[in-house]
Amino acid sequence: MEYLVNGVLTSHLPCGDRAIQYGDGLFETIAVCNGRIEFWQRHMQRLAAGCERLAIPAPDATQLLAEARTLLKGDNGVLKIIISRGQGGRGYRPATLAETQPTRMLACYPWPDHPAANLTQGVVLRYCTTHTTLNPALAGIKHLNRLEQVLARGEWHDSAIAEGVMSDMNGNIIEGTMSNLFFVRAGQLHTPDLSNSGVAGIIRAVIMELAGRLSLPLQCQCYSRDDLESADEIFVTNSVIGIWPVCQIEKRSYPLGEITHQLLDGLNNRRLQKGEHESV
Amino acid sequence: MEYLVNGVLTSHLPCGDRAIQYGDGLFETIAVCNGRIEFWQRHMQRLAAGCERLAIPAPDATQLLAEARTLLKGDNGVLKIIISRGQGGRGYRPATLAETQPTRMLACYPWPDHPAANLTQGVVLRYCTTHTTLNPALAGIKHLNRLEQVLARGEWHDSAIAEGVMSDMNGNIIEGTMSNLFFVRAGQLHTPDLSNSGVAGIIRAVIMELAGRLSLPLQCQCYSRDDLESADEIFVTNSVIGIWPVCQIEKRSYPLGEITHQLLDGLNNRRLQKGEHESV
Repeated sequence: MEYLVNGVLTSHLPCGDRAIQYGDGLFETIAVCNGRIEFWQRHMQRLAAGCERLAIPAPDATQLLAEARTLLKGDNGVLKIIISRGQGGRGYRPATLAETQPTRMLACYPWPDHPAANLTQGVVLRYCTTHTTLNPALAGIKHLNRLEQVLARGEWHDSAIAEGVMSDMNGNIIEGTMSNLFFVRAGQLHTPDLSNSGVAGIIRAVIMELAGRLSLPLQCQCYSRDDLESADEIFVTNSVIGIWPVCQIEKRSYPLGEITHQLLDGLNNRRLQKGEHESV
Repeated sequence: MEYLVNGVLTSHLPCGDRAIQYGDGLFETIAVCNGRIEFWQRHMQRLAAGCERLAIPAPDATQLLAEARTLLKGDNGVLKIIISRGQGGRGYRPATLAETQPTRMLACYPWPDHPAANLTQGVVLRYCTTHTTLNPALAGIKHLNRLEQVLARGEWHDSAIAEGVMSDMNGNIIEGTMSNLFFVRAGQLHTPDLSNSGVAGIIRAVIMELAGRLSLPLQCQCYSRDDLESADEIFVTNSVIGIWPVCQIEKRSYPLGEITHQLLDGLNNRRLQKGEHESV
């Protein structure tokens, strides 16, 4: 497979890159759908925020877009962008911001063949035993330290289970292994607070905005498994899947509800709206 | 710089390696001193324990030793070994253990030129604001998700400060950015419990054994900053530095005490002892 590393088509990265040595960087996973690079600006804003948090110089979004366009082969796919702190010697100490020469790495993957029923009939979730890590310095951003997701996703092999719910070690539910978590209870929308743990997804932010436009009351705080289980509707989100309604968590079933459908319609409109996206 | 990747001298790693994508792997940093590859067996045991935790097939230690010997150019240096889950497609899901083909990557760095006074006069420490992450699934092992250490080490540029003390977000002191932490109080040796956070170092384990042989009472539990500050002696350890006595943490000074010296003598004896090490 070919990657675009600092503008050069290659299949290899220098061994001294700090992405390899320490997971010292960030990434974005972007849906490319019917010729639209979806929510490009939002992805670039999150990437820049992550770079600021890690003291890595933010990439030039115009250059990244140009590079993405040279790499994209068709109208549909998944664009992955990695930004690392670049090469360095042994030792954790990062170069100063002025001295840092980040690595940018782009790849385009085929659109995943998730079952269409995930959207129409909902998906089955399980609970993971692997916890999300607690660290306010790393929470919210999409950094490259993703062992917790790898271990959690390795917990099951049953293809009937689409996603796993992860909690932190204090028992707060945080997110799915590859998605954010929402639930509706008594007409109110809820999503876990991610100040100490978890990745704040792009679609999560869009859904939170949509809730405001639909005058749907939204709460974002700490929740237990009991809170989730007493929900009327549950759904998960990410940039590639959009929204998947949840029909079951372990033994308990949930209806595909009205509010989930409203938000799904709202999201689909936003995915078609001009101004939010870039063309391939 | 040249690395040995799966037995081949190269400077590059395939972009699809999961070390790059997720920090999905482990590493060891091993002192090579006067022709001895120090505590080889212990490093291999920790690496195997880490592989078991991450469900990565453990490398063949005999093969790794043979590869290390082809790479080592002299009698002194720092050998770094990285084991990753190998190549994979997009997505967190790891291959099954049977399908996993790990990547092994070896590098030899020059011996670092730390000031000799670090050992004879002690070092100055500071407190870091970046927390260690809390996650029992990842605590103790030397995995590649090391952003917390990178951020913590990036907090200071004053070369008079040798190391930073990190705490978890519950206020428990855990370790240094690149070292483990010990302190002596009222004739008792203490080191933080690493069940939920931190890296369990090889020298830390040797020191804990030495304490037993010296009939020095040892406690390993949760400690606050106050516990550390009320210590009679403090020292930090890692495989390259061995022991550095601590003479100062921020404004507070500490004597280089008797027990630290006993443990330093004990460690030096172990570094010379036959059977513990491999030759280059």
